[in-house]
Amino acid sequence: MRLTKQTNYAIRILMYCAANDGKLSQIPEIATAYNLSEAFLFKILKPIVKHGFAESIRGRNGGIRLAKPASDIRLSDVVRITEDNFAMADCFESDGTDCPLIDHCGLNSALREALNAFFAVLDKYTIQDIASSNSRIDELLGLHLLEGYEGPGMKAVQ
Amino acid sequence: MRLTKQTNYAIRILMYCAANDGKLSQIPEIATAYNLSEAFLFKILKPIVKHGFAESIRGRNGGIRLAKPASDIRLSDVVRITEDNFAMADCFESDGTDCPLIDHCGLNSALREALNAFFAVLDKYTIQDIASSNSRIDELLGLHLLEGYEGPGMKAVQ
Repeated sequence: MRLTKQTNYAIRILMYCAANDGKLSQIPEIATAYNLSEAFLFKILKPIVKHGFAESIRGRNGGIRLAKPASDIRLSDVVRITEDNFAMADCFESDGTDCPLIDHCGLNSALREALNAFFAVLDKYTIQDIASSNSRIDELLGLHLLEGYEGPGMKAVQ
Repeated sequence: MRLTKQTNYAIRILMYCAANDGKLSQIPEIATAYNLSEAFLFKILKPIVKHGFAESIRGRNGGIRLAKPASDIRLSDVVRITEDNFAMADCFESDGTDCPLIDHCGLNSALREALNAFFAVLDKYTIQDIASSNSRIDELLGLHLLEGYEGPGMKAVQ
């Protein structure tokens, strides 16, 4: 049981943008910070732009930035759009099982309760919370090396 | 994010044994009840026998049964031994990430908290709880059709 790489990096891209303090972030910079290919980053960006968490600005000085305050983006919101499947068991899917217990199964309801508890925790945390929990995030992501860096971020985005 | 088929059927095999009321269950009967191959069932049986949840009796009249009361087998115990990976993100693994935030990451700690909440729910339920939540489990699993059936089970196993 694990989250997809897409989900993990979607959250990390949003953390990067939050730490970059409202300024436009360049794809090559993010790719370098996380040691990922730009092609993979573009793939991950699609759903988070489509669902209004980030916006992409075209042009020579373009880049991406958060489309809403980091404190308004809950981890659960991001995980829900980037994970393609929360079917804990075949019987979560309407046509996915031959199990004779379907419809009245104690396992199914226990797993649903466990999944709800998982999301209840992710509901509590925003991109702002997890990015600001590390006071050295600017330095660790290399943001302090970028042109126009104006000191530790995490203010203008709020 | 989903549990493996192994985990789901490991729990369902234990539910079957619980509903079969302490009597030996035959692999072909379980395979028929869940519409699975016997080869796949044997594969799933290995870890649950190895970890002392079920025992396998050899011979012409052999079969499997619970190795301890159904009320002593928690869902979380089964899930922990049948799932091969609870690394929510690359950074849960010691050598699995290039992320510069490792060691001080708010995402990592939020995901750990969410996973703990997931397991806290599965800690609450036993095989006994989820099997007995369905009063028709004997009928749905076809146990009432077997030779020597003595009425609704779920008593002797407790």
